[in-house]
Amino acid sequence: MTRLSRHLPILEWGRQYRSSTFTNDLVAAVIVTIMLIPQSLAYAMLAGLPPEVGLYASILPLVAYAIFGTSRTLAVGPVAVVSLMTATAIGEIAAQGSESYLVAATLLALISGVMLVAMGLFRLGFVANFLSHPVISGFITASGLLIAAGQVRHLLGVPSSGHTLPEIVTSLVENLPSTNFPTLVIGVGVLAFLYFVRLKLKSVLVALGIKPRLSDIATKAGPVLAVAVTILAAAALNLGEEGVPLVGAIPQGLPVPALPIFDIDMIRALAAPALLISLIGFVESVSVAQTLAAKRRQRIIPDQELIGLGAANIASGISAGYPVTGGFARSVVNFDAGAETPAAGIYTAVGIALATLFLTPLLANLPQATLAAAIIVAVLSLVDFAAVRRVWAYSKADFSAMAATILGTLFLGVEIGVVMGVLLSLLLHLYRTSRPHMAVVGQVPGTEHFRNVDRHQVITSPDILSLRVDESLYFANTRYLEDRVAELVADRPELKHVVLMCSAVNAIDASALESLEEINHRLNDAGITLHLSEVKGPVMDRLKRSHFLDDLTGSIFLSQYDAIVDLNAMR
Amino acid sequence: MTRLSRHLPILEWGRQYRSSTFTNDLVAAVIVTIMLIPQSLAYAMLAGLPPEVGLYASILPLVAYAIFGTSRTLAVGPVAVVSLMTATAIGEIAAQGSESYLVAATLLALISGVMLVAMGLFRLGFVANFLSHPVISGFITASGLLIAAGQVRHLLGVPSSGHTLPEIVTSLVENLPSTNFPTLVIGVGVLAFLYFVRLKLKSVLVALGIKPRLSDIATKAGPVLAVAVTILAAAALNLGEEGVPLVGAIPQGLPVPALPIFDIDMIRALAAPALLISLIGFVESVSVAQTLAAKRRQRIIPDQELIGLGAANIASGISAGYPVTGGFARSVVNFDAGAETPAAGIYTAVGIALATLFLTPLLANLPQATLAAAIIVAVLSLVDFAAVRRVWAYSKADFSAMAATILGTLFLGVEIGVVMGVLLSLLLHLYRTSRPHMAVVGQVPGTEHFRNVDRHQVITSPDILSLRVDESLYFANTRYLEDRVAELVADRPELKHVVLMCSAVNAIDASALESLEEINHRLNDAGITLHLSEVKGPVMDRLKRSHFLDDLTGSIFLSQYDAIVDLNAMR
Repeated sequence: MTRLSRHLPILEWGRQYRSSTFTNDLVAAVIVTIMLIPQSLAYAMLAGLPPEVGLYASILPLVAYAIFGTSRTLAVGPVAVVSLMTATAIGEIAAQGSESYLVAATLLALISGVMLVAMGLFRLGFVANFLSHPVISGFITASGLLIAAGQVRHLLGVPSSGHTLPEIVTSLVENLPSTNFPTLVIGVGVLAFLYFVRLKLKSVLVALGIKPRLSDIATKAGPVLAVAVTILAAAALNLGEEGVPLVGAIPQGLPVPALPIFDIDMIRALAAPALLISLIGFVESVSVAQTLAAKRRQRIIPDQELIGLGAANIASGISAGYPVTGGFARSVVNFDAGAETPAAGIYTAVGIALATLFLTPLLANLPQATLAAAIIVAVLSLVDFAAVRRVWAYSKADFSAMAATILGTLFLGVEIGVVMGVLLSLLLHLYRTSRPHMAVVGQVPGTEHFRNVDRHQVITSPDILSLRVDESLYFANTRYLEDRVAELVADRPELKHVVLMCSAVNAIDASALESLEEINHRLNDAGITLHLSEVKGPVMDRLKRSHFLDDLTGSIFLSQYDAIVDLNAMR
Repeated sequence: MTRLSRHLPILEWGRQYRSSTFTNDLVAAVIVTIMLIPQSLAYAMLAGLPPEVGLYASILPLVAYAIFGTSRTLAVGPVAVVSLMTATAIGEIAAQGSESYLVAATLLALISGVMLVAMGLFRLGFVANFLSHPVISGFITASGLLIAAGQVRHLLGVPSSGHTLPEIVTSLVENLPSTNFPTLVIGVGVLAFLYFVRLKLKSVLVALGIKPRLSDIATKAGPVLAVAVTILAAAALNLGEEGVPLVGAIPQGLPVPALPIFDIDMIRALAAPALLISLIGFVESVSVAQTLAAKRRQRIIPDQELIGLGAANIASGISAGYPVTGGFARSVVNFDAGAETPAAGIYTAVGIALATLFLTPLLANLPQATLAAAIIVAVLSLVDFAAVRRVWAYSKADFSAMAATILGTLFLGVEIGVVMGVLLSLLLHLYRTSRPHMAVVGQVPGTEHFRNVDRHQVITSPDILSLRVDESLYFANTRYLEDRVAELVADRPELKHVVLMCSAVNAIDASALESLEEINHRLNDAGITLHLSEVKGPVMDRLKRSHFLDDLTGSIFLSQYDAIVDLNAMR
């Protein structure tokens, strides 16, 4: 693979493009387009943006990802969680419905795109590793709840506001008396229909003799049917005049690519949210892409994925869109419908462009309640309490990071929630590795093995202390090591030798080196010799670059057994 | 040891107090008092505070530490680095010389004390582990340079300001023309004298037949002699009228304990600097205490040290002082002079109290240049470029954290410098552990050992992939593991089994568990079975609390050898 085709995966797959592939990609693209139209409108509404912005975010970004992305089947576009984060981020600096709200949305996509491309070029994708699974999972669950709660107002047809659960609930309760009943009927009706489609339709279709894969795809078309029926109902019954909020006129035509207005204050205010959106979007997208690629034994290249998603967001930023990423449900449909190459994404983009040009007049009568119901059904499937239970059973530390993320997101806001979770998981990781497992070991009689004195019947002698450290030594745990050695030495007046058994030490950083020097020095002051045993090759290579081995009062032994034999022989 | 005496170490050593101990402690206390008087004045000047504040910070805090601290010989009081951090922190919210500057100093001590006690009670001392050795060492070096640069103005007798090196240098250059020559003569003279004392006096005294230990202590009295001589010179030559800045009148009498004025905005502004001061002070102090305790095979208890230092700072906060911690040079003198118990600290406090009551009139004629010269000599001994070279040779990652700390501290300020260093060392640690060493292994012919295929002649088979992971699995490296497995699998069309060899995996967190489940699932989709081998006991116990073992497509083997034998037998 040349350097150029590594950064332009389209050169790779484009070269082998055949007509059978074209047919498969086209079929998948048609299905994804049908699914994406209502999704685009709905997620734009969730982000507080006019419906056409959702459509714009589903055209050029898909083409950009097809050129630069490494997943064959990932379907990029507006997604729920990123739309919520967009609403929060730009809601803080501009009023919804204002011109600057639109500018902020495109800027946010552009900044996020530039950040993603930069991370890809400088191979900084590892930054996404800060987001642990429990934090991501907790965040998605909490976001799902928050989004669902926020959409209830559209089911009721009332104005309402708020970025946290208490704000949303308070505002809803206040506005409850002004509920619009036709809206409520549509909203609840669509909700019930969509739940039927999701939970029952497949088995009904299968019972009717339709193939499971086709049935699967058909159930994904539920929202499209709901959209069509409620548009017809709204038009026939003139529901707009009954006070039912409708999508309204959508400008016909395609966005003309242009750089958004550069506002330095706005860029500064959006930088932190853009980073969070980039990271969350990347993590979600890569995980979908990995899962799908694995099914066909294909590979994705995470650093190039950053560039692909970055290009998609830059494309969104210059075509009046807003932040996008790879969507889970949509990508699965694309994959199941038989998409073979990213060309399917280009055909989908053409489909959405055609819809934007010719279908938008039909959408004016679409009730917002229909979109809200579609959003609620989609996001509630993201809420995963089972994961919370699993994490609780597996690890209390991980659970507390997850709980902090969920509670922080629901009660303090999405950005604070993620940051709290990330900080807490880092703290807990450092806490765990700062108190590594260490065992005083002794020789198992008749063998060359050494085991924990607390768990096994082993041979020890009062003048030799053998200590096994079960963790790499680095700044977070060196002081603990110093304390532990000091403690063990203080209890043993007859002690003459300390042997640190390093079989599980994968690395020793500069802090740990200084601590070892300090321990060596302190033991020497107390008339005790320090030895090491079973030091790994790479660790030893590094130690040779310091003065430690010259200053060490004792020796480095290849094995703990050698150490004991030699020290006993010296007596 | 009862719970009470664990939190009140004085009950432990006080019970066994004898008259011989009393004599030894008293002698040490007299020597430390003589050393501490000029230090208190000098460090108060460095913190931008009136001289008496330095004396106050050397009375009650010493008594509090003697009651609560666990080190037998640590000498608490004002120290250079903490004084610099105090000047920076309170300089941002109050004008030097104003009443609120004094209030801020006491509040800072009080907040820092409360934080330290809280950390001690909740066993949060591990937070100090965030400060790696290279960061601390770089910070001390940079602070030393910054302090020395900041004191040059006192040698010249000019006004000057600034908290960063460029600010200090610019301000000095501007004020250079107004240099006061008598001040310069005193300053440079004292500087030369102190360097002579430090570098040559000991060998001169030893050559004269005085014992090395006594000579050592005598060299520490250099500043006292310089103080006495320059006071006499200033009084005799009436240097105050020549424009030589003098210490001036110091209020006679002791501070009356009182809570500082509570100003909520001020507390909020001081919280972050107080935390940094607490952590830096604690780390420095514990390291001194550990070193001294080790020499006599004594123990210190880090969590109780937090309480001891916290009590000292609270005492400082309620007696018109400012933040204190254990000082290196002073503690070594205390130790060398024969102090046996913390009672020496109490006697030192009495000594300083007497000095405050009766000696202060003598100090009015002390030139500030003398104190500045003493500070410069003291802090330049903290500057350790050799450590920078050592870290460079040992590890480029640690070096870059150190360089960031030094440059950040010098050019952006002490707080930013430390924070930059801490964040960078965390990032680099995560980066390192996020790409753990993994080796595809094969069987060494004729043995049960498995080694890296790239380094050894080993037996492998095309349908089995054995992968050894040399790091605990946690959120920062799980995605790398997923990527690596995906990559290895994509290259091997004949693959049927993947065996993860976990001999160096000390822990698997919830993120890693999910990644393993995902890997298992993805491999299954590709028709490949996943096995684990050599899983450690505690890791296995935890895995049993999840569904992973039920879902695992393959088996858990006790050893890699068992895995290969079994998988070959299945063929």
